[in-house]
Amino acid sequence: MKIADLIEKLLQGDTRAVARGISWVEDGSANADKLMRAVFPKTGKATIIGITGSPGAGKSSLVDKLATLYRDRGEKIGIVAVDPSSPFSGGAILGDRIRMQTLGLDPNVFIRSMATRGKLGGLARATVDAVAILDAAGFDKVIVETVGVGQDEVEIVKAADVSVVVLVPGMGDDIQAIKAGIMEIGDVFVINKSDREGVLRTEKELEALLALAHRYDFWDPPIVKTIATENKGIEELSEAIKSYKDFLEKGEKNLERKKAIAKWRLIELLQEKLLDDVMSKNGTSKKLEKFAAEVAEKKLDPYSAVEELLK
Amino acid sequence: MKIADLIEKLLQGDTRAVARGISWVEDGSANADKLMRAVFPKTGKATIIGITGSPGAGKSSLVDKLATLYRDRGEKIGIVAVDPSSPFSGGAILGDRIRMQTLGLDPNVFIRSMATRGKLGGLARATVDAVAILDAAGFDKVIVETVGVGQDEVEIVKAADVSVVVLVPGMGDDIQAIKAGIMEIGDVFVINKSDREGVLRTEKELEALLALAHRYDFWDPPIVKTIATENKGIEELSEAIKSYKDFLEKGEKNLERKKAIAKWRLIELLQEKLLDDVMSKNGTSKKLEKFAAEVAEKKLDPYSAVEELLK
Repeated sequence: MKIADLIEKLLQGDTRAVARGISWVEDGSANADKLMRAVFPKTGKATIIGITGSPGAGKSSLVDKLATLYRDRGEKIGIVAVDPSSPFSGGAILGDRIRMQTLGLDPNVFIRSMATRGKLGGLARATVDAVAILDAAGFDKVIVETVGVGQDEVEIVKAADVSVVVLVPGMGDDIQAIKAGIMEIGDVFVINKSDREGVLRTEKELEALLALAHRYDFWDPPIVKTIATENKGIEELSEAIKSYKDFLEKGEKNLERKKAIAKWRLIELLQEKLLDDVMSKNGTSKKLEKFAAEVAEKKLDPYSAVEELLK
Repeated sequence: MKIADLIEKLLQGDTRAVARGISWVEDGSANADKLMRAVFPKTGKATIIGITGSPGAGKSSLVDKLATLYRDRGEKIGIVAVDPSSPFSGGAILGDRIRMQTLGLDPNVFIRSMATRGKLGGLARATVDAVAILDAAGFDKVIVETVGVGQDEVEIVKAADVSVVVLVPGMGDDIQAIKAGIMEIGDVFVINKSDREGVLRTEKELEALLALAHRYDFWDPPIVKTIATENKGIEELSEAIKSYKDFLEKGEKNLERKKAIAKWRLIELLQEKLLDDVMSKNGTSKKLEKFAAEVAEKKLDPYSAVEELLK
């Protein structure tokens, strides 16, 4: 397909064009630049919802139920799942296939998981681009779900309009451990599996942590209790998400937040381009392999190797 | 302190010099290059143990108990905790202070947590450098513990000699979700809190997943059941770690693995240097701020902005 045709179809909401476009940004293909330049001005209409939390918190069920609720209201929903699999060997998510059985057949729901595909880095950038594509293609809600809770994943979720952090009862002292990474990014908190023991304690601990936090925007993050598998609390979650989105749109702080996100995005993209430039030079790949072998055998230190590569 | 003096003291195992050296690599200070060139040839004696798993798995207790066991055997232990906090606002780990009360006063145990400190990227590189410093300073075991389970954290743990993945009973279907990311990196698996319900099911699921996986080195990862808070199973864990280390040393595949790690490390370092170079040019920071504002207001697309930055 010609790139202009693809862009036209994509902007009309054609699902196959959307899927193709996302593959381009994922692969870092030469067409991705042109595509994103065309897509970017058309973005800004969708509500981007980021959902994170530790494995075992039941994020996937929650995302499915939330998507179903939006769909039942007549909206178009895009779901982007970020997979922190290894760049050495790739990896696949089984959850996808399970999902396809329920939501995936719905023409108003588009599901995609993003992985590194063995390419060096760029997952965060590719995810943000995929979200922009869905936005430009006319999806009303785009839900970004991360499997991991690492640095990149935190940034990806932060780039959403509304960030939802999912916890489960009985995390005990470990709630402290995740404080640093994800507590501060939550605009809305969910305690899922809230029929489990320890829900009150987790709620109290969470409230105490949130009371200590200082948000620049003076928003007081709501805590929603859900049982995703029984479809309980999903309506309340959608209301909490909407209330933060409404709050954002009134506030002046929104532009500052958008600027911080834009800066992060520019740096990600810049870093990727810089590496591509160096690696595409004749002989660099070979040199890298050679130096890696020498570093592995301790014949060369990494700092000298990089100095040499940059010459 | 002069850099030559610091290096000398550091290589003699002086704790304050070690701490200072790690700060240099963490800050990306100009001294870091020189330091790491001196440190690198002295590495390779320590056993590097990477420990990962989701928040709530009890990794910290496990690390503490394992470190105590090694210390009781007369060894010197370094612990590096990686904190996936946000580059926008930093963040701190409370766990550290709790730890200092028990292990931190021991002269044979060195504990350090690594955070981004607001610097752009470089956490993975800084962590690997910190591990090399501890290795060169004569620590027998270096334990790297990650709080997150994202892309960077997976790579950090993979760079260890032995990677330990910690699970807890009752993760149910979610064990599938973390498969892609961390299942494949485990040389040793731990089911912690093994007095909880569901331990057998988790063990069976894990065995089934491991049976499906194809390891390039034909290692069959052991599964160790522990109750870290009661100090149960720690001896068995240390044996499982040792058995993989012994296996590695016999195998030819070790060099291939080391080469893959070296390559990843070179790329990390290369990317950091490239960004530093661009950002240190006169006016780039200002331009970046300006472009970020324009991207936020949708007056400019990120791809064109980066093209402009690279001119």
